[in-house]
Amino acid sequence: MKVVIIGAVAGGTSAAAKARRNDENTEIKIFDMDYDISYSGCGLPYYIGEEIQDRGDLVPRNAEFFKKKYNVNVFRRHEVLKIITSYKVLIVKNLETNEIFTENYDKLVIATGAKPIVPNIPGAEKSNVFYLRNVLQADKIKEYILAHKPKSAVIVGTGFIGLEVTENLKNLGIEVTLVERLNQVTPGLDSDMAAYVEKYLKGKNINVILDDSVVELNGYGLINQVVLQSGKVLNTDFVIMSIGVKPNVEIAKEAGIELGAKGAIKVNTKMMTNIENVYACGDCAESYSIITKKPFYRPLGSTANKMGRIAGDQLSGGNLEFRGILGTGIFKIFDMTVAQTGLTEREVLNEGFELVVCHNIKPDKPTYYNGKEMVIKAVADKKTRKLLGVQIVGYTGVDKRIDVFVTAITFGAKVEDLFHLDLAYAPPFSTTKDPVMYTGMILDNAINRDRKLITPNELHKLIESRNDVTVIDARVCRQFEESHVDNAINIPHDEVRGKVDQLDKEKPIVAYCNKGVTGNAVQNILINNGCKKVYNISGGHENYKTQNK
Amino acid sequence: MKVVIIGAVAGGTSAAAKARRNDENTEIKIFDMDYDISYSGCGLPYYIGEEIQDRGDLVPRNAEFFKKKYNVNVFRRHEVLKIITSYKVLIVKNLETNEIFTENYDKLVIATGAKPIVPNIPGAEKSNVFYLRNVLQADKIKEYILAHKPKSAVIVGTGFIGLEVTENLKNLGIEVTLVERLNQVTPGLDSDMAAYVEKYLKGKNINVILDDSVVELNGYGLINQVVLQSGKVLNTDFVIMSIGVKPNVEIAKEAGIELGAKGAIKVNTKMMTNIENVYACGDCAESYSIITKKPFYRPLGSTANKMGRIAGDQLSGGNLEFRGILGTGIFKIFDMTVAQTGLTEREVLNEGFELVVCHNIKPDKPTYYNGKEMVIKAVADKKTRKLLGVQIVGYTGVDKRIDVFVTAITFGAKVEDLFHLDLAYAPPFSTTKDPVMYTGMILDNAINRDRKLITPNELHKLIESRNDVTVIDARVCRQFEESHVDNAINIPHDEVRGKVDQLDKEKPIVAYCNKGVTGNAVQNILINNGCKKVYNISGGHENYKTQNK
Repeated sequence: MKVVIIGAVAGGTSAAAKARRNDENTEIKIFDMDYDISYSGCGLPYYIGEEIQDRGDLVPRNAEFFKKKYNVNVFRRHEVLKIITSYKVLIVKNLETNEIFTENYDKLVIATGAKPIVPNIPGAEKSNVFYLRNVLQADKIKEYILAHKPKSAVIVGTGFIGLEVTENLKNLGIEVTLVERLNQVTPGLDSDMAAYVEKYLKGKNINVILDDSVVELNGYGLINQVVLQSGKVLNTDFVIMSIGVKPNVEIAKEAGIELGAKGAIKVNTKMMTNIENVYACGDCAESYSIITKKPFYRPLGSTANKMGRIAGDQLSGGNLEFRGILGTGIFKIFDMTVAQTGLTEREVLNEGFELVVCHNIKPDKPTYYNGKEMVIKAVADKKTRKLLGVQIVGYTGVDKRIDVFVTAITFGAKVEDLFHLDLAYAPPFSTTKDPVMYTGMILDNAINRDRKLITPNELHKLIESRNDVTVIDARVCRQFEESHVDNAINIPHDEVRGKVDQLDKEKPIVAYCNKGVTGNAVQNILINNGCKKVYNISGGHENYKTQNK
Repeated sequence: MKVVIIGAVAGGTSAAAKARRNDENTEIKIFDMDYDISYSGCGLPYYIGEEIQDRGDLVPRNAEFFKKKYNVNVFRRHEVLKIITSYKVLIVKNLETNEIFTENYDKLVIATGAKPIVPNIPGAEKSNVFYLRNVLQADKIKEYILAHKPKSAVIVGTGFIGLEVTENLKNLGIEVTLVERLNQVTPGLDSDMAAYVEKYLKGKNINVILDDSVVELNGYGLINQVVLQSGKVLNTDFVIMSIGVKPNVEIAKEAGIELGAKGAIKVNTKMMTNIENVYACGDCAESYSIITKKPFYRPLGSTANKMGRIAGDQLSGGNLEFRGILGTGIFKIFDMTVAQTGLTEREVLNEGFELVVCHNIKPDKPTYYNGKEMVIKAVADKKTRKLLGVQIVGYTGVDKRIDVFVTAITFGAKVEDLFHLDLAYAPPFSTTKDPVMYTGMILDNAINRDRKLITPNELHKLIESRNDVTVIDARVCRQFEESHVDNAINIPHDEVRGKVDQLDKEKPIVAYCNKGVTGNAVQNILINNGCKKVYNISGGHENYKTQNK
């Protein structure tokens, strides 16, 4: 048997390695257009920022490694020009010698990855407009920085790559301006969580331009001006375009291989395409959501690895099947960590679930042990009580909580399950009740015990829609005087029991404190004293304030 | 309704707070013998080591707080002498005034906690023999250190408190000798994992004495000598006894409240005792294992909190029920983190499961991003393929992995489920495949794909039992020459394909590399070339070496 794989990064090499582990006798060949193979694409921003100093750390494996360890032949700088599935033949071009030859296969794996989206604007192809996708492009950015000592950069797009590069350029002393088409940064996040990221970026002296896009890149030879839709003109020494990637599917499409709803190659759970003996995996293949079972395109090294291993197993007689993804993502920008998994608030509504939202603001460890606050936004379905998605913005311990949520959601956790987790507690690692548990408790109280939460956005709508809403600021007087929700009255927690009978118990009451805990305590007192409709502001005044910048 | 609670630390105050959240009208009183209430017992070692400098950080809440926020009356320095359940009456003594009075209740919560085990040996009661349990005892240790400037300490017991105190005393410049009755440190861990901790402790210049116990503490006034069973005599400036705790159940027992198999108060999932209207929670109450459903006593602040909340909910009309624990624990000692959850290897065998063990040695992040290696030992049941327990020794990222395992085990994860988790990947946080996923892959290969693992201990037994075992060291020659398994032959990975036909394929073959990955690769080559019985040493030479110190 002969297996041919197109692409030698995460998906392709994983497929090769797994096929070889299962079977010694199959002949395995990989073709890749690039100079570098099996590299860590996710490490590229840190290579630019010199956090990773040794290029070899990014590209730890070469063709010789695959030959010696796996008896796999990797051909770099070879482009597959055409797939002729009816004859099981490829037409391949050696990019070094320009030689063109045919290659037959018994089983084919397409792992052609994704490529950066290049906008159709004047100047997009200039040599100091960079698109970060492979090691060679990172080399070019590094060379440019070394040669030109740029003082400023414009980064277009505020997804995780754009922001990771932002940090790394800032660390090199380069001023960064971010341009984002949407009216929020980090398009994958809900806008209320993006507000925390935006605030942090501005605090780091990063110029953030929202709701605007690039229409032209000007300059002779090198570009030095970025013209925006709004008419704004930014002077800059170079541009990094990170407005997203699209799957590399031209040769597959041309060969009659079916694409999915998101434009990537359609595969079943065995990584098989519509054509017999042709598999696809990695960034060129479509994934699907564990929650909705619908097609999902979220290219990422970890998913590519997983798909590759499954393709390799299947084509060598194994029975491993893909189970879909949650769309988990994480990135760090300076000291901040931003993570998400599962559905966003938007997606929960679009899918027709009965949305419940909470914002849980808690330190990851006791403050006496240097704990840092994180904001956990969680969305659940009121009907099934299932947790559907989580977004976290914080500093330390965010990666731990998102992975616990990932695991819980994967196993279909209901909100009330989280409190019962026997998570590891000691002061250097967590609080007695972990923030994950509190998240479950808040949602459980909202769904099962009528402790309603109201987001800042929903509060505005409620107040607009009726004029009889009582808003109680339950913080101490000094905090109330500093800033508070419009028209709120100040009844500190300690005094609520004494004043509850002065309130109109039939009308809606919204209570809040700094972060939500005391707001909930006051909500309990009000409900237990007969108030009919009591809300607690989700995430308290801290969240309200961040949304009302 | 009137609720009386005995004990105002984690369990008691959680019960009070939850009862109040549910119901405004109940009268709630708490009695506690101590000066301090609602303190963080787990923070005490760090208070001694001055990591926590402000005593108020450990004891953030006082009686006034509970009155103002929860309308709960806390009486410190009040000892409950007797519970008369037939009349629902307590006899209480005010320890400040010596006044004795009666107190009636409608519902009673016993949250009397646990107390340190005091050995029955001469000198155990001397004033520089300390038992760390509450803030007052920590104060005494701090005062002693300040007044006497001790240069050395003996810590008896190597559980997590003993080791946490060790770190903190070392940080104060005090030499520490550890004395442990068993032939391993950290009695909760399997001995093979304890070997990693012992090695680390010795590297930190801590004197570790195993297999020995204290028979006498000598000295006039203050003790200055510790005499061991072995005859060894240790000179020391003070002693900390941390040989365990036992539940504080005397008054409960005397009142006819049933104790469980482990000597703690027997409760059902509603935290009810055998006597109507009497609840128990926290370190005085018995827990049970999520996995075996059998009684379990593992007193810990996080579990106490959980039980307290459930007791408080139940007695005020709620329906929260306890779901048991996994016995999760974590501690840090200097830079090392040690964590465990679920069953140990010993327990898996005792419970009659069909044991499968793996040792997975992996960095928590890419090495180019300062990743540090951790050793994950996982045990599973071959029949059901369920993951049963995990122990981890490492440096960074250990707390994350244990919490993911906790969550997976709670939801009944099978070993093959772990690979599919869509965990958060970016270089600052994880490797492309997370160590959790690798653990599942190794166990899955062992159970479902006949990639047998053999522990160093099992290897010794195999070699003793038959003389035809081939042991292949698959590392490069230089590593083999440094040190290797007795009688192993050196066939580096690259050369195995060429030499496989020289091996006797019918006889048992054991392959190994440094940590297990290449050992598995070689195992695959051998099996795929017709070898019948091939093992890979679990955790490779690194694990073998640590076990053969």
